[in-house]
Amino acid sequence: MVRIIDASLTRFGKRKEDLLTLSAEASREIVRKHGDIIDTVILSNSYSGEYCGVSGLNNLLTTRLSLDSIPSIRIDNTSGSGGSAILMAKSLIESGNAKCILLVGSEKMTGVPGGKSTSIIASLLHQEERMSGSTLPSLAGLLAKEYMKKFGATRESLALVSVKNHHNGSMNEYAQFTKEVSISEVLNSRRIADPLSIYDFCPVSDGSASILVADRETSETVAGRSVDILGCSHSSDTSAITSREELIRLNAVEQSVRNAYRQAGCDAGDMDFAELHDMSTILEIVESEAAGFFPRGSAWKSLLEGTTSLGGRIPINTSGGLISKGHPIGATGIAQATESFFQLTGKAKGRQVRNPERGLAVNMAGFGNSSTATVFGVVP
Amino acid sequence: MVRIIDASLTRFGKRKEDLLTLSAEASREIVRKHGDIIDTVILSNSYSGEYCGVSGLNNLLTTRLSLDSIPSIRIDNTSGSGGSAILMAKSLIESGNAKCILLVGSEKMTGVPGGKSTSIIASLLHQEERMSGSTLPSLAGLLAKEYMKKFGATRESLALVSVKNHHNGSMNEYAQFTKEVSISEVLNSRRIADPLSIYDFCPVSDGSASILVADRETSETVAGRSVDILGCSHSSDTSAITSREELIRLNAVEQSVRNAYRQAGCDAGDMDFAELHDMSTILEIVESEAAGFFPRGSAWKSLLEGTTSLGGRIPINTSGGLISKGHPIGATGIAQATESFFQLTGKAKGRQVRNPERGLAVNMAGFGNSSTATVFGVVP
Repeated sequence: MVRIIDASLTRFGKRKEDLLTLSAEASREIVRKHGDIIDTVILSNSYSGEYCGVSGLNNLLTTRLSLDSIPSIRIDNTSGSGGSAILMAKSLIESGNAKCILLVGSEKMTGVPGGKSTSIIASLLHQEERMSGSTLPSLAGLLAKEYMKKFGATRESLALVSVKNHHNGSMNEYAQFTKEVSISEVLNSRRIADPLSIYDFCPVSDGSASILVADRETSETVAGRSVDILGCSHSSDTSAITSREELIRLNAVEQSVRNAYRQAGCDAGDMDFAELHDMSTILEIVESEAAGFFPRGSAWKSLLEGTTSLGGRIPINTSGGLISKGHPIGATGIAQATESFFQLTGKAKGRQVRNPERGLAVNMAGFGNSSTATVFGVVP
Repeated sequence: MVRIIDASLTRFGKRKEDLLTLSAEASREIVRKHGDIIDTVILSNSYSGEYCGVSGLNNLLTTRLSLDSIPSIRIDNTSGSGGSAILMAKSLIESGNAKCILLVGSEKMTGVPGGKSTSIIASLLHQEERMSGSTLPSLAGLLAKEYMKKFGATRESLALVSVKNHHNGSMNEYAQFTKEVSISEVLNSRRIADPLSIYDFCPVSDGSASILVADRETSETVAGRSVDILGCSHSSDTSAITSREELIRLNAVEQSVRNAYRQAGCDAGDMDFAELHDMSTILEIVESEAAGFFPRGSAWKSLLEGTTSLGGRIPINTSGGLISKGHPIGATGIAQATESFFQLTGKAKGRQVRNPERGLAVNMAGFGNSSTATVFGVVP
């Protein structure tokens, strides 16, 4: 069994620090407390070169953290990097090739103009679709239209995802946005990709998150509650989005979640909370169906009923999600684990779910190009 | 036991194909033969964004190879990416999280001017050293001077590494340079970093290499000889090169090799060949000492005696090494495994070592910033 024994993150948002400093910031306290047991460092980062002109960041980071002799690797899977890094860390430990791994997710994206940033991210798209001018926001707009048409979902239900996540984020001191937004503010905000407005999307962010994972034996040498990684599985779909059978079906998410549940010996009904990859409001809705929380085509109603709010049956994105907490690409998957650790160890403050035993994180790459699902739990 | 069951590579050099096409090229035949058993794809690549403006290359690659539903991850560790990717693949298999992994290493670097390329690679250096104008070639020049002064090595002995590797490369149809060079050509070639000349360095290259690794059970379903990964270990040193105790000691290489030998239950004397990371001639010499083939300060003499030539006691860089075969950053570590597979299965043609049972590969990142050592073998 692989366990998370500590977790930490920086404030997300527009940060003045450089990428290396920011990457180290989330780990300083963990290294101070547990530096002597760390034997491997895994960095989750996608765009250090494109945004910051830095390569070999994992090695620069171990030097900065005075962990010079600790081997390190960078894992990239665009927005899904953190989930992939968790799977790799778990495999390194389960195979006996490591005992205790510091996992650091980080990205600095606000140092370039917005248009350039959109173009950097669009470099993950299938060449033909990129040539046609597709961007990730434009695909989300298309998905929203199709979902609304097919299932009768209202524009308001989508906006409520943003309202809910901003509400949750207002209780997260690490979130980029800590101000609540009203449904009319969402609906009347600047249109980005019809029918979606700017509050329907995650912002461009800087930030870093860290978790410390270890095998059972090592975890037992450390004081404090730990969290088990009960299941972790990745799956893929074609990167050619227009060649998928259905735009509104996220096959990679469905399959990765199904496998993670199977590994964990549980089901959607056993989850007490979930961190989903809400790059846009519509994606949280579709993913909450892919995760088995709602039948297909019905998740939008849950927003009207409050089922996914704090205190609801299955609170989603208690951290504020990508929309309110922010989305520094390489940090996101690790930050989902950080929130899960906080929830399961009772450290989520005002946004704490009552006595949770299990939670799900879905970290998606591209536009459902791939997904890693992780089930976290505490043994009661 | 994790095994290599197939291997392939493209011609290295200046290639007209784009990065994605080149990345797919090395894998086409493997996918045609074994596509039905592949459950994971790992891409070793460092600079897709910086050189080619592409991200999410692993996912684009599975689409190109018609492996859409196969999950994929990109591993980066600059020049040492391939070694890190092998360690990750081995861990995924040993942990039971995968059974059969297609490992693809690729890079396309010739599409930008030489000065820009040097600057992209220099982005891995410690910030203070980079600010002082250090580049990887300049560090190699300093290392060469210090080694020659301390151990009385002759300039000619360094040049002989290049002569030997070009000779080996002349028998490798995939090598970037297939023409032999004479010692006077090396000595009289354009000075790059005193005392080193252009033939003392690897070129800027495009290329791709693939191996297919599997657990024992899966490997037994496939016809043909396979090669065991007997040991694989990574180690790190500080990225601040001027703060190392000695410039001429590659601690990361020493330690990774020692651990890989221990895992494999063997020693330097058991190796029948080695692929070392000859970014420059001096590095092959220092690494051959760090690998235990020669006492410290004496490896330069072996070049005069032919000990590391084909037919010598321990042939080094039978493939031509980075200097003659080329060095597409992300492909190099995988290409070392490819050469080891060819040698151990009797497919190395004119450069075949006689009946080898074990070989070592050292894949280094930065300037000894980190190293992954792998011991390959065939069970007699």
